[in-house]
Amino acid sequence: MARALGRARMPVTIIDRQNYHLFQPLLYQVATAALSPADIAEPIRKILHRYRSVQVVLGEVERVDRETREVVLREKRRVPYDVLVLATGATHSYFGHPEWERSAPGLKTVADARLIRSEILRCFEQAEITDDEAERERLMTFAIVGGGPTGVEMAGAIAELARYTLARDFRNIRPERANVLLIEAGGSLLTAFPESLSSYAEQRLVKLGVTVLLNSPVMPLSREAIFVGGRALPVGVTIWAAGVAASPASNWIGAETDNAGRIRVAPDLSVSGMSDIFAIGDVALALDEHGIPLPGLAQVAKQEGIYLGRALARGLPRPFPPFRYHSRGNTAVIGRHAAIFDFGGGWQFKGWYAWFFWAFIHVYLLVGFEHRVLVAVQWLWRYFTYEQGARLIVDETRPA
Amino acid sequence: MARALGRARMPVTIIDRQNYHLFQPLLYQVATAALSPADIAEPIRKILHRYRSVQVVLGEVERVDRETREVVLREKRRVPYDVLVLATGATHSYFGHPEWERSAPGLKTVADARLIRSEILRCFEQAEITDDEAERERLMTFAIVGGGPTGVEMAGAIAELARYTLARDFRNIRPERANVLLIEAGGSLLTAFPESLSSYAEQRLVKLGVTVLLNSPVMPLSREAIFVGGRALPVGVTIWAAGVAASPASNWIGAETDNAGRIRVAPDLSVSGMSDIFAIGDVALALDEHGIPLPGLAQVAKQEGIYLGRALARGLPRPFPPFRYHSRGNTAVIGRHAAIFDFGGGWQFKGWYAWFFWAFIHVYLLVGFEHRVLVAVQWLWRYFTYEQGARLIVDETRPA
Repeated sequence: MARALGRARMPVTIIDRQNYHLFQPLLYQVATAALSPADIAEPIRKILHRYRSVQVVLGEVERVDRETREVVLREKRRVPYDVLVLATGATHSYFGHPEWERSAPGLKTVADARLIRSEILRCFEQAEITDDEAERERLMTFAIVGGGPTGVEMAGAIAELARYTLARDFRNIRPERANVLLIEAGGSLLTAFPESLSSYAEQRLVKLGVTVLLNSPVMPLSREAIFVGGRALPVGVTIWAAGVAASPASNWIGAETDNAGRIRVAPDLSVSGMSDIFAIGDVALALDEHGIPLPGLAQVAKQEGIYLGRALARGLPRPFPPFRYHSRGNTAVIGRHAAIFDFGGGWQFKGWYAWFFWAFIHVYLLVGFEHRVLVAVQWLWRYFTYEQGARLIVDETRPA
Repeated sequence: MARALGRARMPVTIIDRQNYHLFQPLLYQVATAALSPADIAEPIRKILHRYRSVQVVLGEVERVDRETREVVLREKRRVPYDVLVLATGATHSYFGHPEWERSAPGLKTVADARLIRSEILRCFEQAEITDDEAERERLMTFAIVGGGPTGVEMAGAIAELARYTLARDFRNIRPERANVLLIEAGGSLLTAFPESLSSYAEQRLVKLGVTVLLNSPVMPLSREAIFVGGRALPVGVTIWAAGVAASPASNWIGAETDNAGRIRVAPDLSVSGMSDIFAIGDVALALDEHGIPLPGLAQVAKQEGIYLGRALARGLPRPFPPFRYHSRGNTAVIGRHAAIFDFGGGWQFKGWYAWFFWAFIHVYLLVGFEHRVLVAVQWLWRYFTYEQGARLIVDETRPA
């Protein structure tokens, strides 16, 4: 949206509490030691530096003053607006149990990814030196809660890390015997995909050595155990990929939301009853022409941003003509040589060529030529050697 | 050393509190947003995985039990030894004022580099949004304390970051006008080099916009000010590159040290009076044939490790024939297109070809082919575009 407005030389202020734009779809590769954070993050200033009418402000929003039309930052600075667009995204959600986060971190930020990476690697290190058989078994058990795309991608990537990359590096343990559990409360994985694709994904995971548990609600008990299938199961790390909730931006403006905290918007993405405020991306609940909510996908958010940026830049009369989402297809990757694509209307494909296509698209979608080259080099290197580049254990603190 | 012993199939246990080996000479490039930590760090397990007699233990040493010949880890685990080699390196030193670290972080670890990178970038972000002229001036002042190779490299890299990379990205400030101060208590920079080379380095720094202050002892006052030249100077970030002290490993064994905490060793690198304990690298005070201490350089440490590994592997009679250091030359880099080399005996060179040679050597010295390719790609990209890849601000906590 900022690009569309910047191209039209409209004055824009982007406020973000991070100085970078993160390419979320590859964050699981940072969490599994394949890529570095900087490979999938680009400074917002750099992305927008050629648009001279765009200002970038690093700051955390505290509230919105709708009377004076100002955004108030935690640093007490006020940023005035004529039009306010909320694009604050989503975070993981624990179904009303925020205390579970301590036991089962989710994967939304660079810090999350570094924490999960360090904890997975540290489990193997501790398993290597312990003399206690049960403790070793616990340390080599990884539970991923939630069978959506993130859960499937994490389970596949951890299984591959253990099976290929780490296999040769230890003396006392066999990393390839790690237990990777993908646990889903519902009856199948990847419910957004046709049944043929989701059952293919399940088969591929099982072939990689992942144990898939369906119809299995999970309750995290501590960092070292989860409650599943009627008993406490000792685990090394639990990763939470089960729930998503919108960021709390709705509170800033007192907007109406659904259960997941998403702001209800009109067909032109304006917040109901507030003509000068819009919401796009995962923080918004936009409906398609049949009244069905649009999914929380990057392509939905991008199309909304482009639509709204162009409409504002052209100064169209309000309300703008309604936003229409055009699906470019849905994809998930299960591991080396396996991915699935669903383009709707029976158009789908899977297998190793889907995996190459997935890799090609994701390199293409990265912001910035340098990232594309670096990620492509690393993927090619890993493809031929089974090595992973970013196996660093760093001290990240868990949420308190 | 582990490689030399592993090649001879000798049983070895490497204990480290990090799981990776860090290529220190390029750490300043992580601190100035040019490279990612993973580009210059390689898992110790991966480096040694082909040597089946080598065990790697991730752990922190608490003490050494010389009676029972065991290393005691913080996790209460005990690692028995026949021969103990201390290679624990050095850290920054504040001349008896450890409290200065809060005001002026040093650069020895990945966490240090991330902290310094985030603080430098955050200063520019805050300068962009402040309305207070004096505050902006403060935020755009960077003080580097110490005119050795690290200080010179940091000053050059920060000046280039401001002048080239960030110059186009801001609207309210002119990053290229940042004040980069390189402050040295002695009368010249780079005292380990011949005068012609150190004065060349000084000229190049001045050309890059760095202010070089000689004969200027510094006292950090707070995060926002240093005391220098008889007055308090407001600064955005102070980086400490002034002093180095050996790690406190000497305490574990009750060894005799010099003022900098280095363990005095015999010509075969054994610790005086302890025939089963050796010390190598920055933690050791080894003397050359004229009784002059060997410098704290990576090439000294590497040669010592190879010498000792081979001597132990061959089972030579004690004491081993004395270690002899063969200097491969000394180098420092000042910025784009400027480096200096001194090979001793009047053999020296400087300028843009020295810089290319420096880049070539440092890529070659990186552990692992993947790192070489990634670093080379990033350097080439930056060479032609003046962009830097790793400009992420992350939340690192300062030492308390």
